[in-house]
Amino acid sequence: MLIDGVHYRSIWREPGDRPIEIIDQTRLPHDFVVRALSDLDAVCEAIAVMRVRGAPLIGAMAAHGLALALESDPTDAGLAHAGERLAATRPTAVNLRWAIERVTAAVRPVAFDARAARAREEAERICDEDVAACEAIGVHGLERLREIAARKPGERVQLLTHCNAGWLATVDWGTALAPVYKAHAEGLPIHVWVDETRPRNQGASLTAFELREMGIPHTVVVDNAGGHLMQRGQVDAVLVGSDRTTASGDVCNKIGTYLKALAAHDTGVPFYVALPFSTIDWEIHDGVADIPIEERDGEEVRTISGHAAGDVLTVEIFDRASPAANPAFDVTPARYVTALVTERGVCAANRAALAKLRDA
Amino acid sequence: MLIDGVHYRSIWREPGDRPIEIIDQTRLPHDFVVRALSDLDAVCEAIAVMRVRGAPLIGAMAAHGLALALESDPTDAGLAHAGERLAATRPTAVNLRWAIERVTAAVRPVAFDARAARAREEAERICDEDVAACEAIGVHGLERLREIAARKPGERVQLLTHCNAGWLATVDWGTALAPVYKAHAEGLPIHVWVDETRPRNQGASLTAFELREMGIPHTVVVDNAGGHLMQRGQVDAVLVGSDRTTASGDVCNKIGTYLKALAAHDTGVPFYVALPFSTIDWEIHDGVADIPIEERDGEEVRTISGHAAGDVLTVEIFDRASPAANPAFDVTPARYVTALVTERGVCAANRAALAKLRDA
Repeated sequence: MLIDGVHYRSIWREPGDRPIEIIDQTRLPHDFVVRALSDLDAVCEAIAVMRVRGAPLIGAMAAHGLALALESDPTDAGLAHAGERLAATRPTAVNLRWAIERVTAAVRPVAFDARAARAREEAERICDEDVAACEAIGVHGLERLREIAARKPGERVQLLTHCNAGWLATVDWGTALAPVYKAHAEGLPIHVWVDETRPRNQGASLTAFELREMGIPHTVVVDNAGGHLMQRGQVDAVLVGSDRTTASGDVCNKIGTYLKALAAHDTGVPFYVALPFSTIDWEIHDGVADIPIEERDGEEVRTISGHAAGDVLTVEIFDRASPAANPAFDVTPARYVTALVTERGVCAANRAALAKLRDA
Repeated sequence: MLIDGVHYRSIWREPGDRPIEIIDQTRLPHDFVVRALSDLDAVCEAIAVMRVRGAPLIGAMAAHGLALALESDPTDAGLAHAGERLAATRPTAVNLRWAIERVTAAVRPVAFDARAARAREEAERICDEDVAACEAIGVHGLERLREIAARKPGERVQLLTHCNAGWLATVDWGTALAPVYKAHAEGLPIHVWVDETRPRNQGASLTAFELREMGIPHTVVVDNAGGHLMQRGQVDAVLVGSDRTTASGDVCNKIGTYLKALAAHDTGVPFYVALPFSTIDWEIHDGVADIPIEERDGEEVRTISGHAAGDVLTVEIFDRASPAANPAFDVTPARYVTALVTERGVCAANRAALAKLRDA
């Protein structure tokens, strides 16, 4: 995707003895900063404080991080230690574990001195596959947007999205936003309602940034507004991503997603969840009961950063005498999901449909 | 209610030739500022920029403002002009119109030179009645909290509230928070989840402030979190206020209330709306179709104020190149309301039950 007209992936590593490079997403939209990560500590810190975030991207980051760690210690102990440290950075998204397992399986049969190179190759493959998967999600989702457009000729397709499931959440293209980019490229008139997505404001900070850079009309709203917009007929479809999807189609995504699914259900608006197969956890069936929900620091609720007088400042919006809680995800039961949009096609959010796509 | 242990109403006027005084709610929780309003312009500005807000309080403010205006021009034209200006400050809450009509009806039969005094008397009466109504709401709501407490001996009653329907939204006591204050006073163990309530953060700014001052345990969460808390069994009841209630029990309240009602319904959590009868609009039946929703300035979404290095600063949280929309209220259909808690008692959210209470 484009920033100032230049194509970027959200993570990359130049050939040779070079660090991993990322766009520091904690600095967006106020500053565009590329950050070099040279060791496992830096990689773990970048995931934990969300310099990179989004299930597909943290999977890619973990794979590259494991490769980097193996350059220092390619032993079985080193491999296990690096995998454990990476897995502990964030508990909810399944991609972290998935990527670590995949790289571990790839390098385990290999001699120590070849492990780092093999891991790096696997990390690159994960990145390339993610780009291909996301583009395919875009193609499949585009069909749905074309159908909406066909029902209202001459009018804009009105979408609502929560958090950032754009290219910054993946290696390129994005999940929920991939169909939007495909639609825009073929001239479908689109307008996106962007949920601010408190507490970290990934919608206002990242999604609005992406859409601005791509020239796609959008409007930022607070997270409270989406239900009202749907009640008043101003949303044709909701499109969100997923951090972990159960085998039965429950969707764990950024806190607040569940509320939008309920409103979509109540108002008859289709609720689509876009995800690569790598976010599916085939071992979990009841998302509400069984997915661990990350509790982040309440300071993320108490403070907010923004521009003032040319600087980026952090302000405290309520008193320290009031505690804050900060659950980072919630679970949308499958019954509120109109369809899952995957790289293998669109399917109903249930066990049989997902298994059928998997085994096709 | 108490601030630093001292009893305050949210609006008052000392005897004699004195201005109206209010607590400037745009400065809370960072600064406690009492502001004097000496003419109609100042009163209209205070309502429009939300130095005072909350349906009952803006009704009381309009009544006092009308009395003040009549001191300068007690003619029929002056009365009509002041009423129109006050009514135009905010479109959604019905109390503004209700208070203006009540004061207008009280002064119209009176000679010009007696109108200001008569209006002031009526404004004081509206304030006193509001205090009594809110306290009665507290007594009726307390019954429901006692029932919850009885079902979980030794455990805290866990409530969730949205926006500020506390004493700062009324003249004293509050609506949704009145039962909380009553329960706390009689020693019921209570914990309140406080929705931040973007964009103006009345929950984090005002409700948390009130609960702190009254010593009631509470935790601030972002607006996105409530559904998750309900899914995980951490909320025994939702308690909110209302800016306009239809004859059929639809509830128009701060944007985002509808989303919490949907989550409560989905998870089997009771959803109570507390309101004085003055917020009921007997002429409107379909809230979603017929209540005008105030669209406020998108700058309220783009900017946020807080403390930094001892100052109160305003920061911009996303780029001016991205537009923002800011609907201020939404409508919760009566079918999602477990019960209405009024000064006349608790009733189901439907036409027959409301009419029965009215005519009792």
